[in-house]
Amino acid sequence: MSETVKMTVTGMTCGGCENAVKRTLMKLDGVETVSASHSENAVTAVYDSSRVTPDAMKRAIEALGYSAAGG
Amino acid sequence: MSETVKMTVTGMTCGGCENAVKRTLMKLDGVETVSASHSENAVTAVYDSSRVTPDAMKRAIEALGYSAAGG
Repeated sequence: MSETVKMTVTGMTCGGCENAVKRTLMKLDGVETVSASHSENAVTAVYDSSRVTPDAMKRAIEALGYSAAGG
Repeated sequence: MSETVKMTVTGMTCGGCENAVKRTLMKLDGVETVSASHSENAVTAVYDSSRVTPDAMKRAIEALGYSAAGG
């Protein structure tokens, strides 16, 4: 079933950062759509909760060097 | 044996982008050090050529949404 999570992500400072986060999350199995805003420090993802968790998404974001919380 | 490759990477527009590229490359087995400069559109990596190739590094950079060439 699709769920939506909104995470607070700090460290993104431009559209290139947003794009890197979006593409990294979209590679995870079960992530359906991602939007990212560096001006709002926000990343919102729609995902299949039987295949991926917000924690896995936050780990992937943090592996890029950004901080992720919430969800 | 360690070799050095300098790639031309476009699309990085801030330090957050540089960091995302660096961390992504450092996750590849065989990549030893990485420096990235968005102002110079350059990424330089020292790597073990028996374990990783410049092509693999460029694919990883492009998966983040940046363009990579050279090396």
